[in-house]
Amino acid sequence: MGEFELIGRLFRPLAEITRQEGVLLGPGDDCAIQRVPAGHDLVFSVDTLVEGVHFPGQYDPARLGWRALAVAVSDLAAMGADPVCYTLALTLPDADEAWVAALVSGLREASLAFGVALAGGDITRGPLTLTLQVHGVVPEGQGILRSGARPGDLVAVTGPLGGAAAALEWLDDPQPPSSVSPLLDCYHRPVPKIDTGRRLRGVASAAIDISDGLAADLGHILEASGVGAWLEAAAIPRRYGIAEASLEQALYGGDDYQLCVTLPSPALPMLPGDVSKSLHVIGEIRSAEGLYLQHPDGARELLTTGTGYDHFKTE
Amino acid sequence: MGEFELIGRLFRPLAEITRQEGVLLGPGDDCAIQRVPAGHDLVFSVDTLVEGVHFPGQYDPARLGWRALAVAVSDLAAMGADPVCYTLALTLPDADEAWVAALVSGLREASLAFGVALAGGDITRGPLTLTLQVHGVVPEGQGILRSGARPGDLVAVTGPLGGAAAALEWLDDPQPPSSVSPLLDCYHRPVPKIDTGRRLRGVASAAIDISDGLAADLGHILEASGVGAWLEAAAIPRRYGIAEASLEQALYGGDDYQLCVTLPSPALPMLPGDVSKSLHVIGEIRSAEGLYLQHPDGARELLTTGTGYDHFKTE
Repeated sequence: MGEFELIGRLFRPLAEITRQEGVLLGPGDDCAIQRVPAGHDLVFSVDTLVEGVHFPGQYDPARLGWRALAVAVSDLAAMGADPVCYTLALTLPDADEAWVAALVSGLREASLAFGVALAGGDITRGPLTLTLQVHGVVPEGQGILRSGARPGDLVAVTGPLGGAAAALEWLDDPQPPSSVSPLLDCYHRPVPKIDTGRRLRGVASAAIDISDGLAADLGHILEASGVGAWLEAAAIPRRYGIAEASLEQALYGGDDYQLCVTLPSPALPMLPGDVSKSLHVIGEIRSAEGLYLQHPDGARELLTTGTGYDHFKTE
Repeated sequence: MGEFELIGRLFRPLAEITRQEGVLLGPGDDCAIQRVPAGHDLVFSVDTLVEGVHFPGQYDPARLGWRALAVAVSDLAAMGADPVCYTLALTLPDADEAWVAALVSGLREASLAFGVALAGGDITRGPLTLTLQVHGVVPEGQGILRSGARPGDLVAVTGPLGGAAAALEWLDDPQPPSSVSPLLDCYHRPVPKIDTGRRLRGVASAAIDISDGLAADLGHILEASGVGAWLEAAAIPRRYGIAEASLEQALYGGDDYQLCVTLPSPALPMLPGDVSKSLHVIGEIRSAEGLYLQHPDGARELLTTGTGYDHFKTE
């Protein structure tokens, strides 16, 4: 038995502990088998994390496990989907059992928190890279797309923005002040907004998770929907306890994993209290193209959404 | 727009040309959406190919595209599934448009040949790695597992073995003799046995695709089914035109992508002529553990299946 097969055994608890009813056959055969409930569609997304690009070299493997699964599941939340399972393609430079065990502990914690079972995977030798594909289900036709925003819709986000970007300067600090720990949590332990996304099905006209920054990700909604928007700078939440992200970090910082959603304004007061309380209205969709920011002093700024329509996800 | 987004656009024809009816939403949103037909299960498998591990450095990108998709779809064939779509997580050291265009041409050719649409993907910067996840469907409960082989079942393969291994010594030869071109095709252009797999649903008791060699892969069936087998050396097909793989290559060479199946012997004469003609019976399942090879001189050899039960796929 090779060293990589021993490593493979370390992943077994991930399949066994969180097995969902939808997963009829997990790891160990040519394929896994999932049963999608009648009247539902399968929703899936793939994300790659490369060491040195998407996470720092020598990053804590337990944190990496949590973060990799959270980032992937966040795409399901943005569709309003119920998470079911995931596959993991892991490329490792060597068979370091302690490192892998720590990765598995982080994945396990996130698996239990998000209700997703490991359904299959592939472990190969090579430069450290994780590719996760997550599977969820939505009632037929109820997946929330990026393309449904209409003029007059409200723009809302599910929580404060910019925290992960603000955390970057503290990442290498061995003893950061306690006030920045909410920022560091935001970077190390993002929490996908699964429940909010699910409860916005049939309500939100469009949704996206904020991985590349508010301006870029709202820009994807605007592009896909053929509309524009204005935002009110003072309304953009960016407080984390007593720490605060800058407006710049909130607009352009990545890795927040809050949702940005649009919804018709009459829908807002109809939402259950806990859902509407979790939404921060920050602006409105306009028919005229462009994303504008209204400053408290009345100045209006045209924001750079930058990246254009990402037909195929990149970096 | 970044160079990686330009690269992303090169993949657009893959989603548009081969779009299957089951894919309701392809690349370009947070997730893709697939509708699994009523009475069917989703079947899926993930495979990673790393440069220098799973394919040679400087390998022709058009060949790589074909091979990557063929290898992935082969896992669907081994379940008896109908292919539907796939995702591609591509990590690239740089945005080399000509290289990517050639990769896309190989993927496109294979997509059309195997009837699978690109449903989503992720392009990242890093060492050259491809991770493909393929999705297929089978009627509920009819996926062919590794665990169903029973004593008395016949062991059969769908074609000659060892060709890819025999090709290895010719890979670097600029002008290989024409007699070895069937071997080289076997390596560069494997063809997953989709139709045979599909038509063995409800007939085969177990199946696997031969990626690691007959002994290792049949070994997985034996382990999962709790049985043994004997093989007749003279019955193992290994002729490719006028070239021939060695018995060693046929037993232990990888990358063949034929299927190894087991089936009750009364089922064989009931199969349609073209299916039974594509099966080469090479041995029989026994209740006693171990994989034995019967040589023409009567000698009986215990084969090394080597890798044990691969709960989680490795290398």
